[in-house]
Amino acid sequence: MPNAIITLTTDYGLNDHLVGTLKGVILKINPEATIVDITHNVAPFDLLDGALAIGSAYSYFPPRTIHVVVVDPGVGTERRPLLVTAENQYFVAPDNGVLSVIYEREENVVARHITAEHYYLQPVSKTFHGRDVFAPVAAWLSKGWQTASMGEEVTDYKKFALPKPKATDGVAKGIVMRVDAFGNLVTNFRPEDLPESAMTNGEVKFQVGTQSVSRMVPTFASGNAGEAVAYVGSAGYVEIGVNKGNASRTLSIGRGTPVVLENK
Amino acid sequence: MPNAIITLTTDYGLNDHLVGTLKGVILKINPEATIVDITHNVAPFDLLDGALAIGSAYSYFPPRTIHVVVVDPGVGTERRPLLVTAENQYFVAPDNGVLSVIYEREENVVARHITAEHYYLQPVSKTFHGRDVFAPVAAWLSKGWQTASMGEEVTDYKKFALPKPKATDGVAKGIVMRVDAFGNLVTNFRPEDLPESAMTNGEVKFQVGTQSVSRMVPTFASGNAGEAVAYVGSAGYVEIGVNKGNASRTLSIGRGTPVVLENK
Amino acid sequence: MPNAIITLTTDYGLNDHLVGTLKGVILKINPEATIVDITHNVAPFDLLDGALAIGSAYSYFPPRTIHVVVVDPGVGTERRPLLVTAENQYFVAPDNGVLSVIYEREENVVARHITAEHYYLQPVSKTFHGRDVFAPVAAWLSKGWQTASMGEEVTDYKKFALPKPKATDGVAKGIVMRVDAFGNLVTNFRPEDLPESAMTNGEVKFQVGTQSVSRMVPTFASGNAGEAVAYVGSAGYVEIGVNKGNASRTLSIGRGTPVVLENK
Repeated sequence: MPNAIITLTTDYGLNDHLVGTLKGVILKINPEATIVDITHNVAPFDLLDGALAIGSAYSYFPPRTIHVVVVDPGVGTERRPLLVTAENQYFVAPDNGVLSVIYEREENVVARHITAEHYYLQPVSKTFHGRDVFAPVAAWLSKGWQTASMGEEVTDYKKFALPKPKATDGVAKGIVMRVDAFGNLVTNFRPEDLPESAMTNGEVKFQVGTQSVSRMVPTFASGNAGEAVAYVGSAGYVEIGVNKGNASRTLSIGRGTPVVLENK
Repeated sequence: MPNAIITLTTDYGLNDHLVGTLKGVILKINPEATIVDITHNVAPFDLLDGALAIGSAYSYFPPRTIHVVVVDPGVGTERRPLLVTAENQYFVAPDNGVLSVIYEREENVVARHITAEHYYLQPVSKTFHGRDVFAPVAAWLSKGWQTASMGEEVTDYKKFALPKPKATDGVAKGIVMRVDAFGNLVTNFRPEDLPESAMTNGEVKFQVGTQSVSRMVPTFASGNAGEAVAYVGSAGYVEIGVNKGNASRTLSIGRGTPVVLENK
Repeated sequence: MPNAIITLTTDYGLNDHLVGTLKGVILKINPEATIVDITHNVAPFDLLDGALAIGSAYSYFPPRTIHVVVVDPGVGTERRPLLVTAENQYFVAPDNGVLSVIYEREENVVARHITAEHYYLQPVSKTFHGRDVFAPVAAWLSKGWQTASMGEEVTDYKKFALPKPKATDGVAKGIVMRVDAFGNLVTNFRPEDLPESAMTNGEVKFQVGTQSVSRMVPTFASGNAGEAVAYVGSAGYVEIGVNKGNASRTLSIGRGTPVVLENK
């Protein structure tokens, strides 16, 4: 069997020792593990941003990958640590909804409340459960693959609904969920939320902030230089971008900005 | 044979799932690959910046390393994906000039137009060929090492000339190509562009923006505190730095600023 | 024996090829090495920041880990390269105090002045000893484990004292040593510097900038929303944080701000 893969998704940033410390803890338990960073720049304490990051990446990993997801505003309080099995992959995370995209997409989800404290790094701190709880549990799991030994199954895990566009009076209202590295605006519209004309002949009518967008194209590179266009991004959401430009900066539009689809 | 090494150089940034997704795709095809990040902070869509990043790093890697370079403003359009072999290393990149430093430095360059779509991740998106084309091609290459199976050889690949200083009337005009992490200004002058006096007794006369630089020293740490000095940086270009300071910030000078060498 | 682990702690940032180049150098010498980033965002040239980063992480790594620490304002000058052995781990760094936390915490420290230039990458540049000296020495060490072959033992290595709070007239004066990714203010107070009442019933009286802090809690998440509270952070220092907020931004307080503990 090839080495176990353990991925990390956190809001720790890359400015200090936190991520390195997680990796040390894992390698001390399982020196053969392959550790992969998904991202450590989830917006601090932002469960939706964390859910989107792991939700966009996990399905590209091989079976039996273990995903550690630590966005944890309630660290040190009563929220439970979870081990979730879905689609032949594993997820280790706090029970605060940060795995909501996985719950929504996968059919056979088994969640366990991790109570096997002998796997923790002792003494457990009150503020760094990534190091003391989640990383060691993932590392021990990668050696023994015994999920049942981690704790009892639970079904009342926390889950939030992803924000969906709301249709009223022939208009659908959505939002900018995130801004990517190129300044593209990732909305919460999916292709199935659009009128048929958008996909067939590229006609669409979006209003995002003060900007109108009237062309749906295959990729941002199909737009004219400086033109704001809509297209279906790689994560399956409609995005608004500017060819060879930064839409967020050019249009002064950020996360949370309303996006209105007219003539729906 | 030791595990294959696959490096990644992109403009994806580290704020979302993109880089993690590339790694998942590679490990799903070849779980034994060793993946190394060169940088993911190439200036967005900036082919020169990407060319300098991979061009400064590749020669330090072992033979048979596979370098994935994705700076791809034309993603989803007709530009070709390339597999380039040079100096016993491999490069997988869009055909847009981002490998120009390799073309310039290496003698035996063989470029192939990748057309083996059965290696792609299907369906291929219009906006994320790093995930759907370049990463899987690199991963399959690292298992089979059959370059010919990827596509036909081509010789009309895109190549741009690196900006070189221009000499006229005893004056040579160059630019600041980039600013490094310490604020040092990396110019496009090479030691051979300087008058002999610069290397022998440290006499030189640079004008960069409103700042004069008259001393050539072995390393920025040889300068007096706060003094702007010139030296040959680790990538072989003349740099202008301030000892224990940040030249870019102190002098308010950024990328693209003209650099004039007098008395040449 | 499992593969050697080599960690990297630098102030190189992640915007260019520097870190990728270090990894290429290591893998060319020892393709079996596992390379782990601690952080590359140490504040440029900041020895205290570097010392805190490696000092907070090293003890979580397995025995025989090799830590490369390059914060090196004197690169290219006469400062010595060191190989330090402590607690069954290895540290490769310039002799400028950046290992001070290790010297302070560990009992059996053996330092060697690295003089085995045949291990260097030749020709050695004046500005990039991470690539030409420290990375190759670490890589060769990970193959042969012969510390004595690197150079003679020395005892006059540079060491600085970590800033400690100063008590006078019933008041103790400390500082904010760093700000973490969440905006929490990491002070230089340790639990043993606090009056007994702080740990038993949570009563404390800190003044940091213009902000008073009167509650000591188990974790920042125990604070009321928006309340500035004190707690013992994961690295063993007292931190000041705001639940679900960014203390540094909210209170406009940064590194170096005085922290006064009253009624000590």
